[in-house]
Amino acid sequence: MSVKIRPLHDRIVIKRMEEERTTGGGIVIPDSATEKPVQGEVVAVGKGKVIEGKITPPDVKVGDRVLFGKYSGTEVKISGTELLVMREDDLLGVVEA
Amino acid sequence: MSVKIRPLHDRIVIKRMEEERTTGGGIVIPDSATEKPVQGEVVAVGKGKVIEGKITPPDVKVGDRVLFGKYSGTEVKISGTELLVMREDDLLGVVEA
Amino acid sequence: MSVKIRPLHDRIVIKRMEEERTTGGGIVIPDSATEKPVQGEVVAVGKGKVIEGKITPPDVKVGDRVLFGKYSGTEVKISGTELLVMREDDLLGVVEA
Amino acid sequence: MSVKIRPLHDRIVIKRMEEERTTGGGIVIPDSATEKPVQGEVVAVGKGKVIEGKITPPDVKVGDRVLFGKYSGTEVKISGTELLVMREDDLLGVVEA
Amino acid sequence: MSVKIRPLHDRIVIKRMEEERTTGGGIVIPDSATEKPVQGEVVAVGKGKVIEGKITPPDVKVGDRVLFGKYSGTEVKISGTELLVMREDDLLGVVEA
Amino acid sequence: MSVKIRPLHDRIVIKRMEEERTTGGGIVIPDSATEKPVQGEVVAVGKGKVIEGKITPPDVKVGDRVLFGKYSGTEVKISGTELLVMREDDLLGVVEA
Amino acid sequence: MSVKIRPLHDRIVIKRMEEERTTGGGIVIPDSATEKPVQGEVVAVGKGKVIEGKITPPDVKVGDRVLFGKYSGTEVKISGTELLVMREDDLLGVVEA
Repeated sequence: MSVKIRPLHDRIVIKRMEEERTTGGGIVIPDSATEKPVQGEVVAVGKGKVIEGKITPPDVKVGDRVLFGKYSGTEVKISGTELLVMREDDLLGVVEA
Repeated sequence: MSVKIRPLHDRIVIKRMEEERTTGGGIVIPDSATEKPVQGEVVAVGKGKVIEGKITPPDVKVGDRVLFGKYSGTEVKISGTELLVMREDDLLGVVEA
Repeated sequence: MSVKIRPLHDRIVIKRMEEERTTGGGIVIPDSATEKPVQGEVVAVGKGKVIEGKITPPDVKVGDRVLFGKYSGTEVKISGTELLVMREDDLLGVVEA
Repeated sequence: MSVKIRPLHDRIVIKRMEEERTTGGGIVIPDSATEKPVQGEVVAVGKGKVIEGKITPPDVKVGDRVLFGKYSGTEVKISGTELLVMREDDLLGVVEA
Repeated sequence: MSVKIRPLHDRIVIKRMEEERTTGGGIVIPDSATEKPVQGEVVAVGKGKVIEGKITPPDVKVGDRVLFGKYSGTEVKISGTELLVMREDDLLGVVEA
Repeated sequence: MSVKIRPLHDRIVIKRMEEERTTGGGIVIPDSATEKPVQGEVVAVGKGKVIEGKITPPDVKVGDRVLFGKYSGTEVKISGTELLVMREDDLLGVVEA
Repeated sequence: MSVKIRPLHDRIVIKRMEEERTTGGGIVIPDSATEKPVQGEVVAVGKGKVIEGKITPPDVKVGDRVLFGKYSGTEVKISGTELLVMREDDLLGVVEA
């Protein structure tokens, strides 16, 4: 990607992931085709929320695999890549392996 | 479960429970089949609410059996397990034996 | 009741009461059957509202007979007992004998 | 009335009044029968609004004749008496003779 | 008027005026009959807004001629006089001769 | 105009302008007749927003040519002149020559 | 443009861009004609948000290429140029080459 987004304030840029999960023994358990993925990879984070001059930095970092609500965020297309920009507060959690 | 969620901020991850209750004398009194359970077990908790840099840690812990509104939270599916992510503020109380 | 609820934060657990009132001379004046009771007995109280780490404890205690709006609170069923969980702020007042 | 209400926080308990007003010379000028009264007598007041532990006591007292919006407050019936419970902030003013 | 209103907090009591304006040379220019007046005279003011114990007194005084939105305020009738009670914040400005 | 408005707090009084713009070389380019002007001239400003006793004075002054949303403000008619009263926060910007 | 806008407070003035992107190798990849651009160039910025006298300056500068939601902002036409005025908070991020 030759073009980058610097998210402002408490925004997070996310690349939606097709869910592909592996069991303990390594067998891939795909979601049913009808279920829309609500996971993504963080590709950029803002500086954090600014309240009267104080910054609370976000609690996620680039590369984190995050969970979010199905209808969260704004879809943008940068250099042909579909990305999702949302506030950190709309993230539900970080998926850890 | 080979995959874990680290809930962000004041989010709580819950596994819905089929309600099964025992009377003092140990007789199981199941709910009517038509009644949707509104109890669950806490499987992960966030760090707490962040207000201008201060954190108020959540008042529930992993393993707690909690009560919540029927329509609270966002359903997510992690490694085939259905979980519910909600803000601590949407929890009504902790059920104690 | 073999199971107890510990309400979180500023939540109050209430058992709805059928209104039965006595005049000065002790004659019971029941409400009309069509009027839904809006009184209840407090069965459990939370620690109070948490604002930036400070707690304001609730102004009602277990055993208090409280007034509340007809549509306030969330109904839950614990061990066969129907209870109502609401925020203290939804309580209108305490009925004193 | 053998039963009393202790209003919580910034709630005020009011008994609606049928408006009856006297001119300077003492002649009663009743409202038209179709006009709903929006005056009442304060029968109980709460401690006041609690904000982070500080209390701002209400600016009305028992016996005050107060004005309020037609649809303000919640109607409750205590020992056969119809009362109105509302937040002090919903009161418009105090009527002084 | 034998009865007075003491407005609470940041409320202002206003008597609507039929707009009658005089040009520099004293010729009265009445509004068209179809235009509802949105001016009035302040007849009473509250102490001001109370925020955590501090009072910000209102910026209008009795006798001021004020402008307000057509649908602002609550109409009340005191001793046969129609008055309007609104928050100071709903006043747009003071008309000065 | 023999009558003046003193706007309260953070209100601004504006006289709508018919947009008439001149190119660099002085040729007037009128808007299409169907486009409603969203510019005006500031004719009076309030003292500013009052928050717990502190005043933040407005960032526009009398004579400024300002931009605002098509549906912002309240229309008032003073001495036959149509004016617009709105909060400073509803102003989008100042047009500078 | 012979006329300039000075945006107030936390407003940003933006000129919408037709999206034209170049790959690493310089080949232009236009969006489909049906996709409305959500990018623009910042042409003016306000001083920042004012909260109780403190200013938090905006985190974008003139010339920045910014991303925003499809329906964000208010359209204004200055000297024949269509511009968009929105709050900085409605900007999603800055596009960097």
